Amino acid sequence: MATKQFCAGVDIGGTKISSALFTRDGAIVGRGRIPIDERGGDHAAGQIAEILGRLRDLSSKEDGQLLSIALSVPGVVYPNTGLVWAPNIPGWDHYPLHDRVAVRNAVGQPAADRDGVPEGDIRICLASDRSAYVMGEQWLGAARGATDAVFLAVGTGVGAGILSGGRIVHGAEDIAGAVGWFALNPHFRDEYAAKGCFEAEASGDSVGRRAVRLLEEGHSSLIRDLAGGDARKVTAEVVAQAARQGDAVGRLVIAETISYLAMGIANIVSMLNPEIVVLGGGLFRAADLLLEGVRTEFKRWAQPLAAAGVRIELSELGEDAGLYGCGKLAWDAFDGGETCRP
Amino acid sequence: MATKQFCAGVDIGGTKISSALFTRDGAIVGRGRIPIDERGGDHAAGQIAEILGRLRDLSSKEDGQLLSIALSVPGVVYPNTGLVWAPNIPGWDHYPLHDRVAVRNAVGQPAADRDGVPEGDIRICLASDRSAYVMGEQWLGAARGATDAVFLAVGTGVGAGILSGGRIVHGAEDIAGAVGWFALNPHFRDEYAAKGCFEAEASGDSVGRRAVRLLEEGHSSLIRDLAGGDARKVTAEVVAQAARQGDAVGRLVIAETISYLAMGIANIVSMLNPEIVVLGGGLFRAADLLLEGVRTEFKRWAQPLAAAGVRIELSELGEDAGLYGCGKLAWDAFDGGETCRP
Repeated sequence: MATKQFCAGVDIGGTKISSALFTRDGAIVGRGRIPIDERGGDHAAGQIAEILGRLRDLSSKEDGQLLSIALSVPGVVYPNTGLVWAPNIPGWDHYPLHDRVAVRNAVGQPAADRDGVPEGDIRICLASDRSAYVMGEQWLGAARGATDAVFLAVGTGVGAGILSGGRIVHGAEDIAGAVGWFALNPHFRDEYAAKGCFEAEASGDSVGRRAVRLLEEGHSSLIRDLAGGDARKVTAEVVAQAARQGDAVGRLVIAETISYLAMGIANIVSMLNPEIVVLGGGLFRAADLLLEGVRTEFKRWAQPLAAAGVRIELSELGEDAGLYGCGKLAWDAFDGGETCRP
Repeated sequence: MATKQFCAGVDIGGTKISSALFTRDGAIVGRGRIPIDERGGDHAAGQIAEILGRLRDLSSKEDGQLLSIALSVPGVVYPNTGLVWAPNIPGWDHYPLHDRVAVRNAVGQPAADRDGVPEGDIRICLASDRSAYVMGEQWLGAARGATDAVFLAVGTGVGAGILSGGRIVHGAEDIAGAVGWFALNPHFRDEYAAKGCFEAEASGDSVGRRAVRLLEEGHSSLIRDLAGGDARKVTAEVVAQAARQGDAVGRLVIAETISYLAMGIANIVSMLNPEIVVLGGGLFRAADLLLEGVRTEFKRWAQPLAAAGVRIELSELGEDAGLYGCGKLAWDAFDGGETCRP
């Protein structure tokens, strides 16, 4: 007879799958991380099914019962279907992830048996990665206990997870939080069409591209040497490194990036009036250069009462935000909450 | 013995108070509209208490029972307190509207008796005007049946009411939807500091100001004649009238206004992924000039899937959106919903 209770989280990224077994308090009983099968499709789903089997075994070994599982997907979870779209995983376009994982995980259970509840007594629910990030920080990170919080992820892409009144904002088709598409400059540039204005102006990639443009205009800069004269090596990290050494081009690029980050964050704050905006993603490895400027400048733009009432903080969970978020979503699902799907 | 059931809505505007008794289906049994007492404070609250008394009497006369009342406020409803802030009503700054109305309305009931439920058996709840607009359109207007909808009001000010997953987005301090503060142009102008960038660039007032600037630069235009040479008479309506007659200044101002409206709407769509954005407020009296341009241009900016999935429609309820919204909020409150406060 099992005496302990566990829930499991599986954070599916574009290149790796992280998983863990959680107690109700958020302690991790066991965790793992593997590269995702590059072939995607059923191969990747098979990896996940295997992971679920191992989590179940671990749960038994720990004298516990596995109650609920949440998977996060780097993309979209279509409402009430169990279908997902993950642009970086081949074959995951309207892919029936819920069914594939559930069927493989519960031998002898007919696939048609799915109605959002048990397969082999374990509920499996799905969420977008953005939703998982904000739930993780709300559970055990920078947004602990908040009912209104936003996680802004700025890396190669830009996106947000939104918690409002204690509930995740999914939108009609689970693509809420696509803030990389914020329009922030009326002078439309071609680049905006492919990835959105905010992402084109403030993502990690854009920092490198912005510096390359300045170098091409003939400005002298440390960045040239740091990148060994290779434009492809002008990354956000190289630009940050140069800026820290007082390089004028590096500092200009950082200042422009701060301007756009401040506008994007202000728009989130004015629209949603959150208690906290948590900043995560690769760009904030340069938080020493960015954070204070962003905190000052966003107030110039945002609704003043909303600006006065919000905290802008770095992620406390870092790369584990999504994994913890899955753990929280799994517990919420077990408790009958509506945060996770289907 | 009462055989019918009614709920009441009271839409408190900056200059008038509209009220109505609603059946569950949204039929109006009786309605009224009076100018609000300009002295504000307890005088205005007294008017509302009297209105509630009349609604109760009307309900009895119609052989019905009044179950629940919702009031909408042109400002902020502080969570869980019954306090409101309405900048255009003197003395309504952290004003205890709920208590004042409830006490006056239920003779012999102690004020301390309030806990979100009955005073004299009638629950009175409060909502912001923006929340009421979106609820009204969702009940019986352009957003009928939607779970994810936004009402964008563009008049002298700019603001939004947000419904997400069937629930109103209030934000931490009930100031969610302050989209007039959207940052849409990195070149900060002083005007933005007082009212926000989007409002400074796209409100009804801004349309007039934009035209005046062009006239001051010496452009010849019909607008001069239409306004009788008086810059103060250059309103959005005058600009629209000139644009309809092919006036170049009028058309330029309308085109710039469309650009900013498109950006603001795109930001709402990318962030929240709604099924519909309902456009209301005085500026859309010029919808013949604005709507098609906005529908085309917002797609250039918004996340493409979210843009493809959203409808941009004019308000169907017009000036009654808030009143119907109060009716719906009152019925939801009676049914145990969480949309209305306290």
